[in-house]
Amino acid sequence: MTEDDTHDHVVPGSDEAIDSADVRGYDFDGAFDFDEFLDAYATTGFQATQLAEAIDIAEEMQEADATVYLTFTSNIISSGLREAVAYLVREGFVDVLITTSGSLTEDVIKTAKPFKMGSWDADEGELRERGINRLGNIYVPSDRYVWLEQYLYDFFEDFFAEEKVRTPTAFARELGETLDDEHSVLKQAADNDVPVYCPALTDAEVGNFLYYYRQGYDKDVGIEILDDYDSLIQNGLLADETGLIAVGGGVPKHHAIMTNLFRGGADYVVYISTGMEGDGSLSGAPPNEAVSWGKIKDHDTNYTQIEAEATLVFPLLVAGAFKN
Amino acid sequence: MTEDDTHDHVVPGSDEAIDSADVRGYDFDGAFDFDEFLDAYATTGFQATQLAEAIDIAEEMQEADATVYLTFTSNIISSGLREAVAYLVREGFVDVLITTSGSLTEDVIKTAKPFKMGSWDADEGELRERGINRLGNIYVPSDRYVWLEQYLYDFFEDFFAEEKVRTPTAFARELGETLDDEHSVLKQAADNDVPVYCPALTDAEVGNFLYYYRQGYDKDVGIEILDDYDSLIQNGLLADETGLIAVGGGVPKHHAIMTNLFRGGADYVVYISTGMEGDGSLSGAPPNEAVSWGKIKDHDTNYTQIEAEATLVFPLLVAGAFKN
Amino acid sequence: MTEDDTHDHVVPGSDEAIDSADVRGYDFDGAFDFDEFLDAYATTGFQATQLAEAIDIAEEMQEADATVYLTFTSNIISSGLREAVAYLVREGFVDVLITTSGSLTEDVIKTAKPFKMGSWDADEGELRERGINRLGNIYVPSDRYVWLEQYLYDFFEDFFAEEKVRTPTAFARELGETLDDEHSVLKQAADNDVPVYCPALTDAEVGNFLYYYRQGYDKDVGIEILDDYDSLIQNGLLADETGLIAVGGGVPKHHAIMTNLFRGGADYVVYISTGMEGDGSLSGAPPNEAVSWGKIKDHDTNYTQIEAEATLVFPLLVAGAFKN
Amino acid sequence: MTEDDTHDHVVPGSDEAIDSADVRGYDFDGAFDFDEFLDAYATTGFQATQLAEAIDIAEEMQEADATVYLTFTSNIISSGLREAVAYLVREGFVDVLITTSGSLTEDVIKTAKPFKMGSWDADEGELRERGINRLGNIYVPSDRYVWLEQYLYDFFEDFFAEEKVRTPTAFARELGETLDDEHSVLKQAADNDVPVYCPALTDAEVGNFLYYYRQGYDKDVGIEILDDYDSLIQNGLLADETGLIAVGGGVPKHHAIMTNLFRGGADYVVYISTGMEGDGSLSGAPPNEAVSWGKIKDHDTNYTQIEAEATLVFPLLVAGAFKN
Ligand SMILES: NC(=O)c1ccc[n+]([C@@H]2O[C@H](COP(=O)([O-])OP(=O)(O)OC[C@H]3O[C@@H](n4cnc5c(N)ncnc54)[C@H](O)[C@@H]3O)[C@@H](O)[C@H]2O)c1
Ligand SMILES: NC(=O)c1ccc[n+]([C@@H]2O[C@H](COP(=O)([O-])OP(=O)(O)OC[C@H]3O[C@@H](n4cnc5c(N)ncnc54)[C@H](O)[C@@H]3O)[C@@H](O)[C@H]2O)c1
Repeated sequence: MTEDDTHDHVVPGSDEAIDSADVRGYDFDGAFDFDEFLDAYATTGFQATQLAEAIDIAEEMQEADATVYLTFTSNIISSGLREAVAYLVREGFVDVLITTSGSLTEDVIKTAKPFKMGSWDADEGELRERGINRLGNIYVPSDRYVWLEQYLYDFFEDFFAEEKVRTPTAFARELGETLDDEHSVLKQAADNDVPVYCPALTDAEVGNFLYYYRQGYDKDVGIEILDDYDSLIQNGLLADETGLIAVGGGVPKHHAIMTNLFRGGADYVVYISTGMEGDGSLSGAPPNEAVSWGKIKDHDTNYTQIEAEATLVFPLLVAGAFKN
Repeated sequence: MTEDDTHDHVVPGSDEAIDSADVRGYDFDGAFDFDEFLDAYATTGFQATQLAEAIDIAEEMQEADATVYLTFTSNIISSGLREAVAYLVREGFVDVLITTSGSLTEDVIKTAKPFKMGSWDADEGELRERGINRLGNIYVPSDRYVWLEQYLYDFFEDFFAEEKVRTPTAFARELGETLDDEHSVLKQAADNDVPVYCPALTDAEVGNFLYYYRQGYDKDVGIEILDDYDSLIQNGLLADETGLIAVGGGVPKHHAIMTNLFRGGADYVVYISTGMEGDGSLSGAPPNEAVSWGKIKDHDTNYTQIEAEATLVFPLLVAGAFKN
Repeated sequence: MTEDDTHDHVVPGSDEAIDSADVRGYDFDGAFDFDEFLDAYATTGFQATQLAEAIDIAEEMQEADATVYLTFTSNIISSGLREAVAYLVREGFVDVLITTSGSLTEDVIKTAKPFKMGSWDADEGELRERGINRLGNIYVPSDRYVWLEQYLYDFFEDFFAEEKVRTPTAFARELGETLDDEHSVLKQAADNDVPVYCPALTDAEVGNFLYYYRQGYDKDVGIEILDDYDSLIQNGLLADETGLIAVGGGVPKHHAIMTNLFRGGADYVVYISTGMEGDGSLSGAPPNEAVSWGKIKDHDTNYTQIEAEATLVFPLLVAGAFKN
Repeated sequence: MTEDDTHDHVVPGSDEAIDSADVRGYDFDGAFDFDEFLDAYATTGFQATQLAEAIDIAEEMQEADATVYLTFTSNIISSGLREAVAYLVREGFVDVLITTSGSLTEDVIKTAKPFKMGSWDADEGELRERGINRLGNIYVPSDRYVWLEQYLYDFFEDFFAEEKVRTPTAFARELGETLDDEHSVLKQAADNDVPVYCPALTDAEVGNFLYYYRQGYDKDVGIEILDDYDSLIQNGLLADETGLIAVGGGVPKHHAIMTNLFRGGADYVVYISTGMEGDGSLSGAPPNEAVSWGKIKDHDTNYTQIEAEATLVFPLLVAGAFKN
């Protein structure tokens, strides 16, 4: 075998000692042990390792007694992750919720009538005929919204009775107080004094029904959003340390990191996202981008991101970090 | 050669006549002709064909004299697409803008000081030291925000002088009126009576400076969001036909399709998105999902989606549909 | 409240009975039960439901005693999924393996020296200096390849001793026979008579070392690939039913579905993929595309796809379908 | 306005001079100028800037008279990018082609019968009935394969007449010589002495028809792949400088960077990919990962990646770098 130049390129031959863990997956021999199974994610590589890191960071949040923000997009509540979120609130694991408006309406509907499993590839025109609304592979029959409309009109009357101009957090809290379902996020939030921030409150059916309510009953009711922003900032300023779990992106994720800027950044951060970094979006921006803005503190091991669809990994995060 | 069963599976041999176009790309021989080049996208397949469809639908919007909604995420204004958006407003091609709060602050900054090209892989801690904020491969030095803060305080004084509680559309319009830059989206919108909807107005630096303003100057100022939602719905109800161009997802996209529900759906729809359908998100939902909800009308050829990062394709859409 | 047209658009009011399951996530109250936890994925929606479907279909493969093809990309062996693949082979759950060349070299290296956990964001020039090769967040120090080179030269001598022109399956089998590691995929495959197909055998370090071997020792050795393709087709033709689990895309996935065409399509199919449907790639093509080609049989419930990074979900698939 | 701590966090106030370009998009006022339009991509940000970089690097390849490798997946030939690839070969812009087997069969079919535009959402069972194969939004009626089968049998007879064991490059070259279509990639490659590497030659219809040919006519024909790998390595070693344009990932991309390792790395590199970095795949790996392996040389500005579907951007790359 000739030893030539090309060979040095192909096999340079250095023998660096690396003190990190060996890559090694779960050993399926023997009896199945869930804790060891999940531990093995740490050394499985790629996103499995990211999930293991996320579990570690979420455990650190608890050990540090940090004020924990959980932010999530509306489809999290459409899905079966609603029950996991309600659990975290009920058990006192999270202190602040930030979300978008669909979360609120869907959480309320589910206290009365379930969403149904459906199919991604449906005949949309036919679904429209049948009065079925599709959310991915989840179906929401229209009668849910008929029911919701009446429920909200009744609620609006009380809600706006004393004051005409209210805030989204007050809306979420007072609405949550009317609910009777242990798996309701709004109910658990109301019962456990966890504020629910939702600046773009109009952007779901609640907006539609508020439109009709103003048309039909009371032109003067309003939703004011600066008060909430002040109190969200104060939340952060009062905290010794803050932890942030962002499930999906959008306004909720940005609201959390932006207000953490006031305290010099969040201390512990976990993102779960399908966003694409290369589109320059806020939703796709990995945690390190927020470091340049001072929205996340700059330590090596206090933030991570799992690139995954949340229904696959959020249950594992809850099971790994908040259950044992 | 034996003719057996397997063969029928492998080469079934039918000879169906299909009357669609042949797949064929642009012929680079001869002098380059941009119009033919773009036309060839229609028969190039995959996303190129989606782009060609989008151009067709955007042209139909114009021919039908539809009320055109352009929705976009904040990073569109961070990028060089700001100039294209301003162009569309100035030339009267779009009638309603819906966006998120970062768009407003960044459009104002750019009237005074440019954003700078940067690098995706930066040392974030070092950037933080240097006072440089990173948005993908775009840098925003912090002095921009120092300038913006002063500019906004001055503006707030006028803006809240008469009325203490204002709307996001009023904010955008009156702010736009103060600007002097042909490439400013807010300025063009103000000059051309194009409303700019932005329900989650707090979710960017404007929210931060409103916080300080309330702390320092006037506790009573507020932003009310129901009025805007009413008028956005009215916009849709008054229109004979509506066209919708959604650049990115999030609240702006949903705001547009949700309010089009009141009129039985949008008539022409183009989405540009990097979102993932399989995560059940609103941002990733393709146009057909909105049909089941009645947010888009159900015809075969009135909606399409380009799965792409917007900076690559939006300029081509503008060049193809709005320039010639 | 006025009842007008718009209202019928917004709340059409139909009350369709749907007989699918309610959307509902795992109930974290009480003692954690992994089986129930995993069952709850079925009604969690989005990709969680896809994973639950995949587990069902993988169980059906076993009940039907189908010939199971497992196809995977090389990085699966780089990661800790190697141990799971070896387990499936050892326990007789899979009958045919199809992969790319990196799988072979990395499986051999790991019998002697581990891969190490590393970091996504590394200084690449520095890594190059240190002789560390990066695969995502996995590091492979260069001494592994020095070792491999010698190991393969010794092996080549025996392998080509009798016949100068050999096949990839013979390469994998005879190489596997030399190994001594229960977690080696090649060793388990050799011991359990599971063929390992790898048409593009040159496309990894084995190709490089074969180049040197031919230069230095024996110009006449060769790798012939038609024999293997014949026997892969025969595998499929002899099977009563076939099941296919494709982890990642590329040549391995296509090799499996293409050869299943000869028997009129695979009977049970599970894809795990991060591929994008909209790019028209084979890797991104969902199972239904293969139906038009006759590569998958057309029943409603015999195929599914999980859109996810494999390290997150493959362990759950193995735990759910092949462990209990 | 109180000046407190929080304020320093929110608006740190540094005023760093950055000497990069201003972010600014194309100015649509005035007559449309394609060159300026494309130049403006450089300062549009996000992926537009990546495209502009790719054009620059492709121009540098030409100026340096580098040996240019173009690698592409099969679906590129399915699409209308086939014509652009043929153009680059014919005009002498590329020196080495590396692809997968579907490219070869589809290029041949298209010399006789076109592919047709189709629809993403088709009834797959019905397509199967009608004998239409679907590739994304492209249809290939089955009669194309009936024709191809006969064409290839005739060709095989000549091809294997003298020698029973041949290479993929010989296959591509001699097949190309039989074709009569200026837009054929194989024909242009044969005419211009551009080798076409395709190690996994079996993995498409050519493999199927070789199977039948061996069954029916001649059991002894074979395809040997080591010779090609040697000559691909030699190609790289003989070059002063090498440039690499990888359209999509898979075996072709890796084949190019792996063999460039022998010369210490490629000098200029452009990737176009929809791959996901976070899955640890070769297809998703950005150029910098290849630096650690020595597959790409480590300079700051000699490599880039466009994260995009190729049909959208490859025509612009050709127009920008190879047309003017
Ligand atoms: N520059 C900024 O991005 C910026 C600045 C200040 C505040 N914010 C705030 O962050 C919050 C979230 O931002 P957002 O709602 O504007 O959107 P976003 O950045 O969260 O994006 C939403 C979705 O739109 C799609 N998208 C985004 N960019 C795209 C592109 N370039 N091409 C194609 N698709 C794309 C993606 O699917 C993404 O998930 C908002 O409240 C906003 O005001 C953002
Ligand atoms: N038309 C076909 O696609 C076709 C036909 C017959 C056989 N096959 C066989 O299938 C096997 C797998 O196909 P492959 O290896 O050619 O590649 P592939 O289709 O598996 O793609 C590999 C990767 O390249 C990237 N990519 C693909 N298309 C892209 C695009 N349009 N834009 C940007 N990035 C893109 C993606 O990241 C993808 O994961 C091969 O052996 C091939 O011969 C394919």
